[in-house]
Amino acid sequence: MKRVYNFNPGPATLPLEVLQEAQAEFLNFGDSGMSILEISHRAKPYEKVHNQAKADILELMDLGDDYEVLFIQGGASLQFAMIPLNFATKENPGSYAVTGTFAKNAYKEAENLGVAQLAASTEAEIFRRVPAQSELNIAQNAAYFHICNNNTIFGTEFHYVPETGAVPLFADMSSDMLSRPWDFKKFSLIYAGVQKNLGPAGVVIVVVKKSLVEKSLPTLPTMLRYDTFYKKNSLYNTPPAFSIYMVGKVVAWLKAQGGLAEIAKRNARKAEILYAAIDESEGFYTGHAEKNSRSLMNVTFRLPNEELEKKFVAEALENNLSGVKGHRSVGGMRASIYNAMPIEGAEILAEFMKKFRRNA
Amino acid sequence: MKRVYNFNPGPATLPLEVLQEAQAEFLNFGDSGMSILEISHRAKPYEKVHNQAKADILELMDLGDDYEVLFIQGGASLQFAMIPLNFATKENPGSYAVTGTFAKNAYKEAENLGVAQLAASTEAEIFRRVPAQSELNIAQNAAYFHICNNNTIFGTEFHYVPETGAVPLFADMSSDMLSRPWDFKKFSLIYAGVQKNLGPAGVVIVVVKKSLVEKSLPTLPTMLRYDTFYKKNSLYNTPPAFSIYMVGKVVAWLKAQGGLAEIAKRNARKAEILYAAIDESEGFYTGHAEKNSRSLMNVTFRLPNEELEKKFVAEALENNLSGVKGHRSVGGMRASIYNAMPIEGAEILAEFMKKFRRNA
Repeated sequence: MKRVYNFNPGPATLPLEVLQEAQAEFLNFGDSGMSILEISHRAKPYEKVHNQAKADILELMDLGDDYEVLFIQGGASLQFAMIPLNFATKENPGSYAVTGTFAKNAYKEAENLGVAQLAASTEAEIFRRVPAQSELNIAQNAAYFHICNNNTIFGTEFHYVPETGAVPLFADMSSDMLSRPWDFKKFSLIYAGVQKNLGPAGVVIVVVKKSLVEKSLPTLPTMLRYDTFYKKNSLYNTPPAFSIYMVGKVVAWLKAQGGLAEIAKRNARKAEILYAAIDESEGFYTGHAEKNSRSLMNVTFRLPNEELEKKFVAEALENNLSGVKGHRSVGGMRASIYNAMPIEGAEILAEFMKKFRRNA
Repeated sequence: MKRVYNFNPGPATLPLEVLQEAQAEFLNFGDSGMSILEISHRAKPYEKVHNQAKADILELMDLGDDYEVLFIQGGASLQFAMIPLNFATKENPGSYAVTGTFAKNAYKEAENLGVAQLAASTEAEIFRRVPAQSELNIAQNAAYFHICNNNTIFGTEFHYVPETGAVPLFADMSSDMLSRPWDFKKFSLIYAGVQKNLGPAGVVIVVVKKSLVEKSLPTLPTMLRYDTFYKKNSLYNTPPAFSIYMVGKVVAWLKAQGGLAEIAKRNARKAEILYAAIDESEGFYTGHAEKNSRSLMNVTFRLPNEELEKKFVAEALENNLSGVKGHRSVGGMRASIYNAMPIEGAEILAEFMKKFRRNA
């Protein structure tokens, strides 16, 4: 079977074992005589999948009964609006660190509603780094402080959990959720579009303190209220069942690998291999991110000129290395090395980088 | 391979050939070396699938260039809010026919925003029928008139297209879109959660006149504005790619069957078989819907008592007939016979009904 190393930023590579398992049972889910695509979301076999996925997510994050897992559609982009709609007011605005495209989109969504406060921005530095704790000007009356934990496009990542005092900490973890053990308890709300580290596109996981979502504003439309999802176990209407089923398989796979501690080791090793290939290239490859903000998920770098960059992308593909082209707003290359990318993939890419440089 | 006759109301049965095709290419989509779950939504092979699905939907509906197909997440339930948010005001409210649970939910969502006008309701008659044209009191200043074309829970369906004068006609067709040729041109906006007739859960198809969605209110959050989807070909953020891919396969299958004219014949035949089993039962089975409002998609009926109803569900399952239990708000039975249910399935269920009655 043909299989490439897929460095796309999302949708992204998934564990091969997970795909094979889903394929094998695609026509007959749990001996029901139906595909998982055809089974009722009110049926017990589906409900078991749904609830097991929730339990496994909390277990991997080492979170207890005071947190709930919600499954919501619309992507992280809809969360950018739901969060201020549910939690922010003019008196108690949402406070934002703007560290990349998606962090800025989240901020703009709150700003459009007139309920945003800017705590920090690294835009003037083309988002080469995330701000330090000392640079965060979080309004004391803020309803929450929002960060984007990993900035997919620019290849930067928070390597500390911001201290926010009494202000609840919210994070978009779309591109690094469940990639390492983390002090998740310090967060009140974490969300992630699953199509990077956790499954196929179509669902957002929201992990949230129950106390925050027990009751939402009744003036909000039903599907924009967190309590709609909380009270009905994310089954108020038909959920994106197949995406949730795949997320369930991916988190079970994560547990079987040894959980977040083990996957973090592999992720660190992959990042180390690729950053070494950049740092040892005598300036042929230049990383976009500042070293202490480097992402373990998305490695961004430039080549000496755009012509070489085009050649790099084309030759990489000939070598079975797909999706290494960077985002147009940064240019250059980006290698996304999420949980499901094997160490071998990073090794082969690093070898290719060395060979390409020698031949350039 | 075990396969049941699946009469569930949604998620629902899909064409077996479509499932087999998806299974066969599950690990290697279009020789890309990736699963369809892993491929970038910006990649050409995905874009082709996306655009072909759109074109096929318009072709099946016999609609031209003045209509656009949008793919939106959140279910029909999110459309219940997006429609009034985008189109209704206090001066020009949305006008609603309340003909079932989902029609009422749509109305309530507009009412919660203070922009609803009630044109008709059959709730006092437990939604046994849809209103006649003469019963529709559509406000002349209405921004739109909204119907639910087929009422899944109660088993009723509009068999005429309401005349609305200058008021644009909107319809939730979640449970009967593409089940028959219809005068779709009389509608300005049609939407359907795909998990009944058109694919696996996870996406809503919105077919809308372009003139309506070229520019939305800038005060609305990005993901609640129709123009966000229109301007970006429903690729503003990561779409639910797998659901759209499956919809593409289902509409291609529909075309290969002979299009809506052919599928309508089969659907009419299935409904005829089951309604005959009810009407010829000498009162053992009683239909919920009035005859001239009977749905061709969902056949609802009661048995003489609840004990027999329980027995019916259990014995049906033993006979490989799954999902015949009705919704709790109506009770009794419901057989959903969407496009993908073979005529054979209706015949076997009708036979079972006769046998069950003889033995009762």
